[in-house]
Amino acid sequence: MNETEGEGNRETRVAFQGAPGAYSEEAVYRACGRSAAAIPYRENVEVARALASGDVELGLLPIENTLAGSVYVSYDAILGHPTIVAVAELVLPIHHCVLGVSGSTLKSLHVVESHPVALAQCAKFFARHPSIVARAVYDTAGAALEVSRAKDPTRAALASRLAASHYGLTILESDVEDRPDNQTRFLVLSRRRAQLHEGIRARTLLVVTTENKPGALLRVLAPLAERSLNLVKLEARPTGEPWTYRFVLEIEHHAGDPSMDEALGIIAANSQSLRHVGTYAVSRV
Amino acid sequence: MNETEGEGNRETRVAFQGAPGAYSEEAVYRACGRSAAAIPYRENVEVARALASGDVELGLLPIENTLAGSVYVSYDAILGHPTIVAVAELVLPIHHCVLGVSGSTLKSLHVVESHPVALAQCAKFFARHPSIVARAVYDTAGAALEVSRAKDPTRAALASRLAASHYGLTILESDVEDRPDNQTRFLVLSRRRAQLHEGIRARTLLVVTTENKPGALLRVLAPLAERSLNLVKLEARPTGEPWTYRFVLEIEHHAGDPSMDEALGIIAANSQSLRHVGTYAVSRV
Repeated sequence: MNETEGEGNRETRVAFQGAPGAYSEEAVYRACGRSAAAIPYRENVEVARALASGDVELGLLPIENTLAGSVYVSYDAILGHPTIVAVAELVLPIHHCVLGVSGSTLKSLHVVESHPVALAQCAKFFARHPSIVARAVYDTAGAALEVSRAKDPTRAALASRLAASHYGLTILESDVEDRPDNQTRFLVLSRRRAQLHEGIRARTLLVVTTENKPGALLRVLAPLAERSLNLVKLEARPTGEPWTYRFVLEIEHHAGDPSMDEALGIIAANSQSLRHVGTYAVSRV
Repeated sequence: MNETEGEGNRETRVAFQGAPGAYSEEAVYRACGRSAAAIPYRENVEVARALASGDVELGLLPIENTLAGSVYVSYDAILGHPTIVAVAELVLPIHHCVLGVSGSTLKSLHVVESHPVALAQCAKFFARHPSIVARAVYDTAGAALEVSRAKDPTRAALASRLAASHYGLTILESDVEDRPDNQTRFLVLSRRRAQLHEGIRARTLLVVTTENKPGALLRVLAPLAERSLNLVKLEARPTGEPWTYRFVLEIEHHAGDPSMDEALGIIAANSQSLRHVGTYAVSRV
């Protein structure tokens, strides 16, 4: 009799990359509420694919970390799926722990496993422990799961405090990130554009291709600068065709600012192709 | 009596990342001649460190691949060592093979190991073989070495034909890169700037920091476009300080063109900091 009252049908299904206990799962709950159903996928591109095909209502991908930089597999997942749009961003402070099985110590470790972007945030830890090898695996929490299964005191995972409790691991050292202000920015992806209140601080994400000749990129950036629109992020990704690129731009502005629409029109005229991936409210912790 | 005639002292010591048989080792011989002594290092940053400290005369690092994009660990190695300069570039066609031990077949494989940048160039192979896991390790040839030692028919390496003969492995499939025109561009690094013949096609590599405000990047790019100097590459890397970036620019011009020097002067005045990493001849295969 409770079946019709169950929350199952009302839950928003949100795809994320990683295993349960991943930073991305925490980001799903912060961005979409604790009632969201966070659905794990192994690869970033699978999150985009699940969203584009309608298997989930939303997707969430890490887009950049303040120490490791852009998460290129997320950029490429978005670039490869032209129907998905960005509707929100979320910034999460990231504090990594070294997690081992009961009985392991920092001295007993030969290998610390984690996502390559997480390993890159803890270069100083590995410099302090030259005998420990950093091994890249598909996820932080996935590494914690593997370590808990292997029960090997020479192996540890680099993952969150949440992953420690999730997989019953011991925290051998906490806060091993290179800087305590380490943060990751995530984008929430959808198939429908966000409706924003006019005047709030917003960001617009664009993908632009230009001719390979002098001044081509300038003709994309000038319409922004002339309107005091702030280019906050610029990435170039290869097209596959040798030595040609797609540019991904993020521009900060106020929602509904007509100068942003003007700039978009001029950029469209000055480029080979323009995709408006989405406009979303700025999130800062 | 032959000791004083030995070539040991005349060999140029060139640091590269990877194991013997790596694509980078081949790039060393192409860029510096077969008499060069190619010295392997495990990490890209160690190549920069060995050069900066005087342990080697030259270093060589992959900077971008046409399928996988920029090699960020190489960018960061250069950014972290302000005394090293770029003196040459080299473009190498890259064809990957799946290498197994005697008796292994594509069907017997559970895991294919390689450098993450190489794995990213072979996404279609892994899509065709969903039961094979791609595992990231520190080097393509290093993966071949490990596979040859393990003698396990479920493991293979993704590496070059040269690595196959180097480690006595069998080629299970060749040319598994996503596109046959797959290429990697390398930079040769030194402690002394290159002397170029006037008028040849050249590239200049710059690192620029700007204020985080509208138009800041435009004031760096405009002096280039106004002089018809072609910006061929632009990357943003994080500084570590949240949401701030260093831009790495590559500009194509003719060696000795006074307009390049003019542009450099204006960029220096319009930016917070400017580092001229080097100017080198354009290399195209």
